[in-house]
Amino acid sequence: MILERLSVPIVLAPLAGGPTTPRLAAAVSNAGGLGFLAAGYLTADALADQIARAAAMTEGPLGVNVFVPGRPPVSADPVAAYAATLEAEADRAGIGLGAPRFDDDQWEAKLALLAVDPLPVTSFTFGCPDQAVITALQAAGSEVWVTVTTPADAQQAAAAGADVLVLQGSEAGGHRGSFRDDPADNAGGGFGLLSLLQLVRARTDLPLVAAGGISTGAGIAAVLAAGAAAAQLGTAFLLTPEAGTAPVHQAAIAASGDTAMTRAFTGRLARGIRNRFMIEHDADAPVAYPEVHYLTAPLRAAGRAADDPDLVNLWAGETHELSRELPAADLVTLLAAEARAALQAAASAYGR
Amino acid sequence: MILERLSVPIVLAPLAGGPTTPRLAAAVSNAGGLGFLAAGYLTADALADQIARAAAMTEGPLGVNVFVPGRPPVSADPVAAYAATLEAEADRAGIGLGAPRFDDDQWEAKLALLAVDPLPVTSFTFGCPDQAVITALQAAGSEVWVTVTTPADAQQAAAAGADVLVLQGSEAGGHRGSFRDDPADNAGGGFGLLSLLQLVRARTDLPLVAAGGISTGAGIAAVLAAGAAAAQLGTAFLLTPEAGTAPVHQAAIAASGDTAMTRAFTGRLARGIRNRFMIEHDADAPVAYPEVHYLTAPLRAAGRAADDPDLVNLWAGETHELSRELPAADLVTLLAAEARAALQAAASAYGR
Repeated sequence: MILERLSVPIVLAPLAGGPTTPRLAAAVSNAGGLGFLAAGYLTADALADQIARAAAMTEGPLGVNVFVPGRPPVSADPVAAYAATLEAEADRAGIGLGAPRFDDDQWEAKLALLAVDPLPVTSFTFGCPDQAVITALQAAGSEVWVTVTTPADAQQAAAAGADVLVLQGSEAGGHRGSFRDDPADNAGGGFGLLSLLQLVRARTDLPLVAAGGISTGAGIAAVLAAGAAAAQLGTAFLLTPEAGTAPVHQAAIAASGDTAMTRAFTGRLARGIRNRFMIEHDADAPVAYPEVHYLTAPLRAAGRAADDPDLVNLWAGETHELSRELPAADLVTLLAAEARAALQAAASAYGR
Repeated sequence: MILERLSVPIVLAPLAGGPTTPRLAAAVSNAGGLGFLAAGYLTADALADQIARAAAMTEGPLGVNVFVPGRPPVSADPVAAYAATLEAEADRAGIGLGAPRFDDDQWEAKLALLAVDPLPVTSFTFGCPDQAVITALQAAGSEVWVTVTTPADAQQAAAAGADVLVLQGSEAGGHRGSFRDDPADNAGGGFGLLSLLQLVRARTDLPLVAAGGISTGAGIAAVLAAGAAAAQLGTAFLLTPEAGTAPVHQAAIAASGDTAMTRAFTGRLARGIRNRFMIEHDADAPVAYPEVHYLTAPLRAAGRAADDPDLVNLWAGETHELSRELPAADLVTLLAAEARAALQAAASAYGR
């Protein structure tokens, strides 16, 4: 197991859409953690290039996260209706909206690439791959990790043969890794990470990686004490110089500011810092991923270019204000020391 | 500090409305934790009686939780409109709806009682008392704990002179302890417990008690590792024989079943197991506490009497299915042993 070989129980969360870079992944692995690449939104060729570049910068293990595709839409009407409500935004920004389209993010090409030239860990988000996909990757020499947000999804992933479960609590920034993006499932905002750790541990003995709202060594210590083998951190790395985070996004991460979940930017539920776009369009946004992602892409690009935080999807976990501006390796080392101290302090206080 | 004198870092959550009993509070204190009484919905005389009965059963410390009153409503119209949508429910149950009214839960009388005959700990929920109230209780010999759900509320409570902050994560069952019940604040379901621990610790050095979704020793170990001085558990005690939990509520707690937050039962946001009443009436329910509490009280009583889970407010934290049917003292002892083992295991694994 890769998790047993890490000198530091810290896994980089895959941050698709810009923040993840080969340099960032390599830096985390070089510091003793597990660096991750994000296949989402990349072509298979671009992914192959990122893998080659990251591998050239580290001898440590690397992981790659792949989006499991959904189903083509039954009707284009909800997206067209949403697009109509965004025309004024596009006019103000001086751009045209993107053409909404369904695609599978080059699913087969990415699987083929990773079967031929596997990384030590392949993780999946947005669903549980078929058992055949999991078995093929394992046969090629890769561990298979599956992201889950509910105890039921955890049981499904375990039954399909996953080696490790990545538990994503409701605190997490970015897209929810839910198998189904069903508004009725999210009445309570989803399971908090600590709840999920307890509930899933009662149903499986698989190794667990804990993700969502972890920005400090104390947070890492907490999930290890709850039985996780490692913590997965994403937002905490957004201010490192190795990350490709847009400046407008970095500024928002560093400040305090409430987060909320929305489908306004991509048609799939995701947590970000509340801004004007989210507040004004959340109620109108349909469940339609990746169609809405493509629809709003030019708006978000215009917001990043103009440093306008109100047009950008400011993905962030609940503790984003605790993110530190440090080189990634220094951050890994600092977090590990904090976590170790927190665990030792709690263990000795409670052994009194 | 009371927290430093506990042999077990477990605090009973106050479970107003039936589950909390003097026997339950005394049993937790006798096992080395901190038992809590719940002043909510009781008259000051009934509270005095419960305090006397609990104190007669334990030499250990006890706490009492008091609801901070809100403001009288500006208009009765939203409650009247909601009442109209519930008439069919009342007819089916063969009862009349309750008369909605505002009251302050005998705030002054309870404060007077607790100033004359203080318990070691007085905690508050639904708001931050004025500094004068806090100072008076401290002068009478009681520690003052304030329940908070956001970093901003934590800062306000610290500035008002609270001795301890009780952090309630979004995983918690029952009412949210928010200072303001504002639908706009809850877009993301509120802060998860682990996020709240990290964010509040960055803003204050006050001792923290962690509440919300903790049902196992691993969960307790996690919050201690994150820096909490103790864990507060409520749902975990609902199946103990000392608790006054209604049978229909007990049955729901013991089964798996999704929870969600709703104002349908009381006019204030609270987490419970999803049932027909919640699903059908959530969207119609106004922010109006305690008016809606009184409005639905006969319906809920009828549901309890008829063992009808679809009419009852099945308050429950996210991990309710992990609650164990054990005498309260045995549960405290078991949880403490589990927590100690979890902390020691994590500390030694990570010291390798």
